[in-house]
Parts: sequence; structure tokens; C-alpha cells
Amino acid sequence: MSVTAAKGFTAAGIAAGIKENGNPDLALVVNTGPRRAAAGVFTSNRVKAAPVLWSEQVVKSGQVSAVVLNSGGANACTGPKGFQDAHATAEKVAEVLGRGAVEVAVCSTGLIGILLPMDKLLPGVEKAAASLTEHGGEKAAIAIKTTDTVHKTSVVTKDGWTVGGMAKGAGMLAPGLATMLVVLTTDAALDNDVLDKALRAATRTTFDRVDSDGCMSTNDTVLLLASGSAEVTPEYEEFAEAVRQVCDDLGQQLIRDAEGASKDIKVEVINAATEDDAVEVGRSIARNNLLKCAIHGEDPNWGRVLSAIGTTSAAFEPDRLNVAINGVWVCKNGGVGEDRDKVDMRYREVHIVADLAAGSETATIWTNDLTADYVHENSAYSS
Amino acid sequence: MSVTAAKGFTAAGIAAGIKENGNPDLALVVNTGPRRAAAGVFTSNRVKAAPVLWSEQVVKSGQVSAVVLNSGGANACTGPKGFQDAHATAEKVAEVLGRGAVEVAVCSTGLIGILLPMDKLLPGVEKAAASLTEHGGEKAAIAIKTTDTVHKTSVVTKDGWTVGGMAKGAGMLAPGLATMLVVLTTDAALDNDVLDKALRAATRTTFDRVDSDGCMSTNDTVLLLASGSAEVTPEYEEFAEAVRQVCDDLGQQLIRDAEGASKDIKVEVINAATEDDAVEVGRSIARNNLLKCAIHGEDPNWGRVLSAIGTTSAAFEPDRLNVAINGVWVCKNGGVGEDRDKVDMRYREVHIVADLAAGSETATIWTNDLTADYVHENSAYSS
Repeated sequence: MSVTAAKGFTAAGIAAGIKENGNPDLALVVNTGPRRAAAGVFTSNRVKAAPVLWSEQVVKSGQVSAVVLNSGGANACTGPKGFQDAHATAEKVAEVLGRGAVEVAVCSTGLIGILLPMDKLLPGVEKAAASLTEHGGEKAAIAIKTTDTVHKTSVVTKDGWTVGGMAKGAGMLAPGLATMLVVLTTDAALDNDVLDKALRAATRTTFDRVDSDGCMSTNDTVLLLASGSAEVTPEYEEFAEAVRQVCDDLGQQLIRDAEGASKDIKVEVINAATEDDAVEVGRSIARNNLLKCAIHGEDPNWGRVLSAIGTTSAAFEPDRLNVAINGVWVCKNGGVGEDRDKVDMRYREVHIVADLAAGSETATIWTNDLTADYVHENSAYSS
Repeated sequence: MSVTAAKGFTAAGIAAGIKENGNPDLALVVNTGPRRAAAGVFTSNRVKAAPVLWSEQVVKSGQVSAVVLNSGGANACTGPKGFQDAHATAEKVAEVLGRGAVEVAVCSTGLIGILLPMDKLLPGVEKAAASLTEHGGEKAAIAIKTTDTVHKTSVVTKDGWTVGGMAKGAGMLAPGLATMLVVLTTDAALDNDVLDKALRAATRTTFDRVDSDGCMSTNDTVLLLASGSAEVTPEYEEFAEAVRQVCDDLGQQLIRDAEGASKDIKVEVINAATEDDAVEVGRSIARNNLLKCAIHGEDPNWGRVLSAIGTTSAAFEPDRLNVAINGVWVCKNGGVGEDRDKVDMRYREVHIVADLAAGSETATIWTNDLTADYVHENSAYSS
């Protein structure tokens, strides 16, 4: 399944020896055509890893034949040599596939500030190419894991065509985008501009609204490749919705696997004057460390929600704000509402609704609680 | 010392029974004149506690005779009744002192969303008034503690005049301002406009740059009261510097007492194009949870510093960035610099220098590491 659910794609995931523990660390996804349309969305962090700088150019060139992804090293903050290494990796893939390097996107994830072991990576490309199959999607998804505890894949099948994909990410999740590598594939016959439009629309309301810890990575990449192999051109709306569903599903999987988290928190902002207001308020709530600690302690601390709302520039009146936690309106008109003891916080999913009483727009941001396990994982793991 | 180091002030700190554990919870500071000039700076959170709304009006009225402060309840998000309670508290102080209520500032700190026990607070005001002395500053400083492990006071004495003060704050520290209540006093003979100018200049580069956890409170208040009792009018520059020193000292004490922290982190941004750029970059670094975890783990993880810089709009080129941690330039020109093993992280203070290589402006932001103790304290303590 995964990236090989759609026809016209092969994939592989192998251990190249980049990770010292011998786990799979190199994935290859190949579009066998007949079309090689593509779109990409990249991190908005201004400190971009070498593979991001490379792959942005590849997507702009208009045709993507393959994506090579490695875990075990981010190739970020590695200077000119890092860029040469990303380029050399693409050249190697191009050579073994008989395509041009400018058609090969490169993604990396892992430690920042160290060069990749090219003596292991380049032979790994040959090994991966030799393992390519039409059923390799799952192995590819496994090979891109870092601190992920599970591999993440999703597929939506429609009438004669399919959108599928894989993702990795378990920390440093933040908008624009979460630290994630995502490769989506489809066998629908679509041009770059349609793919780009559908991909941007989908990521804007899915990955861009997954905010585990407010930190934005240097390597985030979401690619959508279209083989045209199904020989079907779906309506735009139907296709866009399928892409959105796959992105939403993968985004949810990222949140559920966030480092150290014990709660998945859905922050739903309603009755905002504008969608931008709703997103700003949702992010402010989702990034409030004190609230995230309170949720970890199963404490329906609505005062911290109001305190977070108050730091935004959104339209609202403090004495008209309402907050529900797991269905109980614990804050009404900016003050005490229903009995907070009624709030059942035992389950993993926590649902916070912030009613701005200022309009009719809405947005949902997903985040996690802040836990001692998060601290332990991120103080022990240099990334 | 504290607020009674300057002449013309009395203070008291007593247990009114607001805190269930019987600890001191009510402080009173009185300006005995002859002048009653004052200035105030308040939280920029748009969800403001009732005492903030009240005290803003008091400062605007031009004369402040007394400040009454309680711990054990923030009187925030308490609706019209909460405002009535703040007003009634000021009325009670005015009654026992024989002044007008409009000259009495009110500060509260503690849990959000609960009404104050006025049946305990109002008798407490009488008890505090009966305890007022010229040596009551320390008791007042003790009575405003919440999760503070120590009380915080500071004094600067100049030629014939003094600036002193007290502060409380141990969490929810963030710019604009940190969750803090601060009362500063001086016996210098100065008018409101000079006090206001000096106080704003001081808080801008001290309390506003103390950012323990990125969370902004509903109750932050910094008041500066001048009695004129010393009958000296210092030069503005000298006075402003004395106020800045006291604010800086109290700000440092807040950082050193931040909830659960094991490291005090000085983030110094140098060679920025503008001071605003330097502050934006400093805040972004100071609020990066992943970096704060790394520092807790004594890991000189400069990649997380670059990743934080990259999320800002400041002027810089990624390949010209340099980062030093405790004096070792671990990142040079956006890539690997000196050996990170040279960085000694054993001590409580950690010094990060981020060189933007884009100008000559600088700013320093203080923060703390992110620890399991922070999570425990803030998941168990509803505030």
C-alpha cells in the first residue's frame, strides 16, 4: 500500500548503514509513468536543509521521476558540501534509473549539523534500486522512521484511481510544516498545476494545523507524484478531497505518535471573525506550555485557555468568550461556567472548543500534551 | 529593605486566610508622602484580571497612596463580581487609611477563575493596616509569594535617594510582562511623567526580556511609587539607571526561581540589523521547547538554535550565522564550527550567543530550560 497503492509506482526500503543500529534508513520511490507530474510543499523555515534546497529546484523543473529519502541524518546546516552530497545522491539515483538527476527529489531526516556518510549512502542507492517492487510501499515507509514508533501510511481509492502516501514524523511538529517527510502518489492523469493546487489546499488545513511542540524543522517536505497510469482524470474537487483525506489521516497519525505525548488535543476555534483569527487563536492555545502541562495532569484548566487567547490579535471581547473541554462549558462569558468536576479527562483524546463569539469562521488545530517523557526524549536525543 | 528602603513608605505582610495553608497572603504598601506620584506598566494580555483593570484607572488618576496585594487568588476571569471585589478591596484600604479609593492600586496573584474570599480579605486589610511599619518591606515581599521558593527584593541607594522594590513570580514568565507583581518605591521627588518614562524604559529591557515559558499572564503589574520624602530630584538619566538596575536584579531573581528549572539561559543576539530583529530572534530561541530540553540534557545542540532563528523574519543569511554556546563557536557560517565536545555545560548558567552577521544591534533574552519538574509542577498545580 502506501506509495505503491497507486499504479505506476515502485518503491523500496533498505538498510544502507547510515543508522548505526542497522535499521532500515534508505527509501526509494519511483514513478514508472507514463506521466511524471508532481507538486511539492516545503518548510517555511528560512534555514533550509540541503535536500530541501535541491528538491525545490527539482519540483520547479516540472517533472519528478523518483524520490530518494534517508533517515539517520538531516543534511541540514552542512554548508556547500551538504548541498554537493544531496546533488550526488540525486545523480546516483538518476544513473541507476537511467533518468536525469534534475528529476530526482531528495529528502533527509535525522540529526542536524552532520554530513551524511556518502560511502554508505551511494551503495545503498544501488541496493534500493535493485529492490524496487510494486509492493515496496510499506518497506519505504519503514525506512524513513526516526523516533517514530510506527510507520505511517494512508490510501484513498476512488472510481478507477487512487491516492496513497507515507509519512514520517514524531517530534518538532509545527506549522509550515510539521517535521515531516511525506510522499504522496496517485495514478490519476493530472498536470502539475492541478497537483500543486490540490496539494497546497490539502496541507493548509491538515499538516499546517498539526502543531505538536511549536518547533519548525529545516527539512519538512511533502511531495505529490502523479503517474497517470490509471488513465483517468478525475474532477478537481473530487481529487482535492482525496488528497485532503490522505493528508488528514497522515497528520492524525503524526499527532498520535508525537514524542512523549499522552494526550492528543483537538483545539477547535469557533465563531471567529475570520479564518485567520481562528487559526491564530488555535495556535496560541496549542502552544501554551502551561495548558499542555495541565492537560497532561487531566486538569480542565480553562483559565490557561483564556490567557492564551488574550495574547492574540484576534477579534473578541474578553467577557464574551466561552470554552468547553470535552463537552462541558467550563467557561461562559469570560468567567466561571459549568462545574469543572464534570469534565472527564480519562481518555487520550481531549477536545477543547474556544468560542470567540465574534463571527462564524472556524479552524481546528491538533496538538499534544507536554510530558516528562517529552523532556526526557528531547534532552537525551540530539537531533 | 524592599519597598521600605526608600523613605516615606510603610508596609506590612500578614496571613488573611486566603491561602488554605495559613501562609502570609496579603501585603500592603503605603506611600506616606509628602508626594504621591506614581507610574504603572500592566500586562499586554487582552484578558486582564479585575485588579489590573482597576489599577490602570488608579494610575491614570495621577496619585497612588497605597497598593494592596494578595496571593492565593488571581481574581481573573471572574466577571462583574470580580471587579466589584477589587473595587471593594480598594475602598476598604482607603477607609482604614483615610484616603480615596481611587488612590489605591490592587494586585492579585494565584488561581484564575475563582472569586476571592472577601470575608477573609477585608478583615485582612484591617489587620495589615494595623501592622504597617517602616521596616515592613520584607514581610510584604513574603506575603505575595505563590510558587516562589524565595521572596525577591532589591535596592539601589544613590546620593541621598533610593530605589527599592519587591517582586513575585516563578512561572508563566513571558514578555509583556512576565507573570509578576512588582512594586517599586523611591523617595526621590519626581513627577508622574518622569516616573512613567523611567519605568517604561526599564521594563522594556528587563522584565520584557525575561521569558521563562512563553506564557503571558492576566495579572502582570509593575508599579513605581515616589514619596518625595528625600527631598532630592535626581537627574533623569541617573534615576532611570537606578530603576533599570532594580528591575534587572528582580528580573534575574525571577529567572533563577522559575518553576522546575535547572538552567538559566542567557540568549544574546549580536550583529542584528535592528534591535527589533535581535529581540525577535532572541525570543524565538528562548521559546524553542526542543532547544530548552537539549540544554536541560547539557547538549550543546546548535542545530536547534539555527532552526529557531530560521522561523523569524529578521534580516540574516543562513550561511553567515554563527552560534557560540558557553564561549565555544559550535556553529560557523551556518555549518559545523568548533568541536562541540569542548562546550562545558555543567553549570547552572548557560550562555548562547547568536551572531546574525547583519548589522550591529544586540539584545539579550533570559529563559530557562524545560524540565520534567516543570511538567510535574504545572500539571499538578491548577493556576
